[in-house]
Amino acid sequence: MSFNTFGHLFRVTTWGESHGPALGATVDGCPPGVTIDSDALQHWLDRRKPGQNKFTTQRQEPDAVKILSGTFEGVSTGTPIQLMIENTDQRSKDYGEIARAFRPGHADITYHQKYGLRDYRGGGRSSARETAARVAAGGVARAVLAQLVPGLKITGYMVQIGPHKIDRARFDATQIDQNPFWCPDASAAADWAVYLDDLRKAHNSVGAVIEVTASGVPAGLGAPIYAKLDSDLAAAMMSINAVKAVEIGEGMEAATLTGVENADEIRMGPNGPEFLSNHAGGILGGISTGQDVVVRFAVKPTSSILTPRQTITTAGEEVDLITKGRHDPCVGIRAVPVGEAMMACVILDHLLLDRGQTGGLRGQIG
Amino acid sequence: MSFNTFGHLFRVTTWGESHGPALGATVDGCPPGVTIDSDALQHWLDRRKPGQNKFTTQRQEPDAVKILSGTFEGVSTGTPIQLMIENTDQRSKDYGEIARAFRPGHADITYHQKYGLRDYRGGGRSSARETAARVAAGGVARAVLAQLVPGLKITGYMVQIGPHKIDRARFDATQIDQNPFWCPDASAAADWAVYLDDLRKAHNSVGAVIEVTASGVPAGLGAPIYAKLDSDLAAAMMSINAVKAVEIGEGMEAATLTGVENADEIRMGPNGPEFLSNHAGGILGGISTGQDVVVRFAVKPTSSILTPRQTITTAGEEVDLITKGRHDPCVGIRAVPVGEAMMACVILDHLLLDRGQTGGLRGQIG
Amino acid sequence: MSFNTFGHLFRVTTWGESHGPALGATVDGCPPGVTIDSDALQHWLDRRKPGQNKFTTQRQEPDAVKILSGTFEGVSTGTPIQLMIENTDQRSKDYGEIARAFRPGHADITYHQKYGLRDYRGGGRSSARETAARVAAGGVARAVLAQLVPGLKITGYMVQIGPHKIDRARFDATQIDQNPFWCPDASAAADWAVYLDDLRKAHNSVGAVIEVTASGVPAGLGAPIYAKLDSDLAAAMMSINAVKAVEIGEGMEAATLTGVENADEIRMGPNGPEFLSNHAGGILGGISTGQDVVVRFAVKPTSSILTPRQTITTAGEEVDLITKGRHDPCVGIRAVPVGEAMMACVILDHLLLDRGQTGGLRGQIG
Amino acid sequence: MSFNTFGHLFRVTTWGESHGPALGATVDGCPPGVTIDSDALQHWLDRRKPGQNKFTTQRQEPDAVKILSGTFEGVSTGTPIQLMIENTDQRSKDYGEIARAFRPGHADITYHQKYGLRDYRGGGRSSARETAARVAAGGVARAVLAQLVPGLKITGYMVQIGPHKIDRARFDATQIDQNPFWCPDASAAADWAVYLDDLRKAHNSVGAVIEVTASGVPAGLGAPIYAKLDSDLAAAMMSINAVKAVEIGEGMEAATLTGVENADEIRMGPNGPEFLSNHAGGILGGISTGQDVVVRFAVKPTSSILTPRQTITTAGEEVDLITKGRHDPCVGIRAVPVGEAMMACVILDHLLLDRGQTGGLRGQIG
Repeated sequence: MSFNTFGHLFRVTTWGESHGPALGATVDGCPPGVTIDSDALQHWLDRRKPGQNKFTTQRQEPDAVKILSGTFEGVSTGTPIQLMIENTDQRSKDYGEIARAFRPGHADITYHQKYGLRDYRGGGRSSARETAARVAAGGVARAVLAQLVPGLKITGYMVQIGPHKIDRARFDATQIDQNPFWCPDASAAADWAVYLDDLRKAHNSVGAVIEVTASGVPAGLGAPIYAKLDSDLAAAMMSINAVKAVEIGEGMEAATLTGVENADEIRMGPNGPEFLSNHAGGILGGISTGQDVVVRFAVKPTSSILTPRQTITTAGEEVDLITKGRHDPCVGIRAVPVGEAMMACVILDHLLLDRGQTGGLRGQIG
Repeated sequence: MSFNTFGHLFRVTTWGESHGPALGATVDGCPPGVTIDSDALQHWLDRRKPGQNKFTTQRQEPDAVKILSGTFEGVSTGTPIQLMIENTDQRSKDYGEIARAFRPGHADITYHQKYGLRDYRGGGRSSARETAARVAAGGVARAVLAQLVPGLKITGYMVQIGPHKIDRARFDATQIDQNPFWCPDASAAADWAVYLDDLRKAHNSVGAVIEVTASGVPAGLGAPIYAKLDSDLAAAMMSINAVKAVEIGEGMEAATLTGVENADEIRMGPNGPEFLSNHAGGILGGISTGQDVVVRFAVKPTSSILTPRQTITTAGEEVDLITKGRHDPCVGIRAVPVGEAMMACVILDHLLLDRGQTGGLRGQIG
Repeated sequence: MSFNTFGHLFRVTTWGESHGPALGATVDGCPPGVTIDSDALQHWLDRRKPGQNKFTTQRQEPDAVKILSGTFEGVSTGTPIQLMIENTDQRSKDYGEIARAFRPGHADITYHQKYGLRDYRGGGRSSARETAARVAAGGVARAVLAQLVPGLKITGYMVQIGPHKIDRARFDATQIDQNPFWCPDASAAADWAVYLDDLRKAHNSVGAVIEVTASGVPAGLGAPIYAKLDSDLAAAMMSINAVKAVEIGEGMEAATLTGVENADEIRMGPNGPEFLSNHAGGILGGISTGQDVVVRFAVKPTSSILTPRQTITTAGEEVDLITKGRHDPCVGIRAVPVGEAMMACVILDHLLLDRGQTGGLRGQIG
Repeated sequence: MSFNTFGHLFRVTTWGESHGPALGATVDGCPPGVTIDSDALQHWLDRRKPGQNKFTTQRQEPDAVKILSGTFEGVSTGTPIQLMIENTDQRSKDYGEIARAFRPGHADITYHQKYGLRDYRGGGRSSARETAARVAAGGVARAVLAQLVPGLKITGYMVQIGPHKIDRARFDATQIDQNPFWCPDASAAADWAVYLDDLRKAHNSVGAVIEVTASGVPAGLGAPIYAKLDSDLAAAMMSINAVKAVEIGEGMEAATLTGVENADEIRMGPNGPEFLSNHAGGILGGISTGQDVVVRFAVKPTSSILTPRQTITTAGEEVDLITKGRHDPCVGIRAVPVGEAMMACVILDHLLLDRGQTGGLRGQIG
């Protein structure tokens, strides 16, 4: 990871600002010979697209992705794939006030301090709009994974909004696409709709917890010590706007467990080792075990709210700021497809890295 | 981060196994002209050193660090600094059984699967012993920081062991060095001693939560989007053995907050902006705000325990395994100086990266 | 350098194929606060633009560059700068035969072998058209350098075509822009015109040697051992299409010199050290001396010629191939602005890298 | 390549100074399961070892290499391999005068200017002694290549010293090890011995040209555009001390050829494509063709000579300097095994990089 690029061999560089002419991702290191279907990319972008219901920003963006390079007759050639999304609904006039005042809890002030100037239109580069480019790149990663590891499946969903968690006993993966929260618990989703609508009307916002699971990940991915699979996932998820914590498997709860409880005991199954539990979240020593890789991350509440908050201006004046504009009351919702995209990119990257170093060699058991 | 190297400009490569002749760190990109005092490095290593009390492994290692290159007459020259720590107390005979059986919850099985072979002596490269090299490198980083940012201070401490948390009202930084847990709450430390001793005698182990705070960090450090300060810290901490979660500021709790609550409001102080709270943990948009940078991470319980657990052997046999040897009942304790070292390295790295890109330019306020 | 990216801190990723919809460069790590004038970028692109005289390809491309991101009100913000050049004059029908036969001396066969497929339209990614993106990125580097090192000047010119060299005694920098060869020797340029026209009519092509000089480079740039200034320049120039050799200072001739001859003796001038000669080409131990940095590179003849050459097809058939289309009789000519661009990017990159590591500290003399 | 590390997946970091306690190489990314024989490493080091005849420095160093990590029972484990060579014959007193005066043509002055201080003992980090670490790392690369690409063979030799070139008609590979110059032309070697001995007695030194050939390199290695095989080789060779030029295939002579002459025509052989010539030096478009990879580099004369040269001191005084000490009259001689080592490292690196990206997929012909 360096500046605006992540990945070791599957390298994604995102570019673009919220209200510039376009944004996108330069995807380098993609294996050749993979069908990269712009319709398939669009499918993933549509999941993240703003304006789909009252719980996401009302900005209307088609988020239409164009492939400018790297494919020939619809197949990847091994050269860089440029994915461009043009911005169409930039109402810069909405952002007049934040040109001079810093939104509390927002990157406005740190961009100003670091760079000496900032593109304040819609948050510029710090806008969650940047994540559209990640989702496009994730679509490429998914296409490659579908060819290289057919059984691999990545699923993101929301498990908590504010203090309200799902009931794991009601977990139903088929529900995820059936509600605006990507919530696997239909009952919780109904409650959340009421809860969030109230918050929104009260000119407030709230945080959330997202979980992303990858099943069918081969054992052996991850490059210890400083490119461990969990370390790279942590960096990837923490790089998403507003994320403040990342957990693998038991996460913070691992602190409360004893060694007797935490041991994922192993038995010999018909196809190799089988674990009796998955406290590890599919990763031991930074390397995948073959179990589900389970990552969670916490998203803080949107900082752009209609309730006045104390802040200062670039001139050093103290003001109370109300942030108008079209903002998500829970930015965590649209983080779900972004988390999936990052998972796809990181897993593919490690698949390539591993076959580079080990050539796919695997230690036999039994 | 790639394989065994982390950092953009201050680049640390660690090497070595638990029971090999030596281990160490190759530190590249260190600024020239800094006094690198081997006694000072030793000071930090002594904090992490095993065998200091009954709550850490009884392995006796002096952890004496030698500087093999990169300094001239005690001053850094800008060339690579090689730090070597020789292993002296390798009782490889203790590890007979784990040569063939995989410890549940340990990297034994994944190293075997990935690489086809593994150095099983003391866990080889996956041993927490690797972190001695990080602490040595962190000592170099601290020496540079002391020269470049005199007021900067990095402090790590344990805030939770098993289910037992400190009482923040009793937080006293002077207590941290006064108990075997680096615990800032003297009362909690006393309770923990009893708790952990019981666990140890019961042939069990337990997890912990470590917090590391850096005060005096200048505003403006962090390179969005994919080398954000928090993203790099997350990767750094997650790369430490047994870590399963990383939090910045409010961490997972950020999910429960509303936007009104989470806003760190800003007022104008005599020396520039002042924040009325620090939910952000000193980082907004991946860039430091000038407030304390606050990171927490959860360490899972040691997987090497004397209680039998079900597992398999390399031959695929199902066995019950008791792990003998000299293991920490709470590996989180010795993770405290490691977390500090990683914090020091990451902050220095970003200081260098920032002055590379921006040349120290800073946006004025007021 | 990795895949399609070069640079340590000033990182340029080029993308795009000869006959795709567009190509460009993603420039990351650009310092903030620099006026990036699209007209200025265009100025450099116009120098490389095809179709300007009978000695370059007759393809008509405006090579109009668009800045899609990374600037705000005309000033760089520190975020990625996306530079896009749309292709307009793709006559893919011209390339029918090379869809199946490999041009001898061209990358056709190696791309096919490596990637299993290739975009044969105009050479796809291996086309010299890719260098337009480098020139655009070089324009950004020049803008930054103009602000950071006002006296720095980069000049490229051709010193040899086929066996015909310039006469150094007639070197006149003002002539460089006055002939189609960027030749500093007006007399040679006149001869070359006749020579190359004859070759062109004979359905042949020829190689050339380009020299690029940077004056006003501060002493101290270059990061030994593996990011030496000359090492990075060698990689940069060798990455240009058709380049087969790179020389610094005396270059290959250094082999013939004795130590007595080669020593660039040093005297003390009013502003510091002064060298009595510059055999070193401005670089000692991989670090700039403050003298002119002098790089030369040899460009092989265009492999696409109208004279039949023996080759094979993808089906393994042996054929004689005549390459129609619009090709440069001496591709070296248009390599001049490309060499300048690479010089600008590498020097800026090292300027940033150096101020990252050393903070601009410099050893005093006298 | 960054600071003291080169390689994408097979990453070598060298460390250490000429007169420090030790120097070495940290080799990361080595594939697991390869026998790494310290005797075999020593074999390569012995070729570079000083003091073997009157044409190399009389410093006596055993250059005994120790493997400190990364192997288990003699086999690579996939973890970092630390190779250490202890310095034993450091006569620092010989270097008294160069502590204050800068040798003309040497890195003394640039290290001083860049870093503000320098380890002047024997040139510190800028000493050719650093190349011992490269040769050790190259030995690891050779061991891996021997296992992965059994037929691959790398051979270095000297083709020119001062103005005296070998006669290619007398090229006899079996002669290379039979004379102190690694010269494949026995007659030339005899002449060179007289020539160099005279120079040495005259307190002078001279340059040389080294050629390194790799046969049996599979087609398809190299990662365009900015990690081309030739681009990486150019950087690798230019990073060797005193190298001023790098050529691939025809090198500078490519400038004099016409397209008709330069075309390496292709016929269909029993095992695939066969080229009728190798002007390209085995690389087209940055990717290996399967022909011999041929690289040449020019080494300038040793700058440390016994003939007085004008220079200045750190205090700015003008002095005449005679460099005493034990220096090679032609440093090019000992660059031969170093060039071989760099070739081995770069080819292995690209083999791993290629199998990472393409998985070994290859386009069929015929």
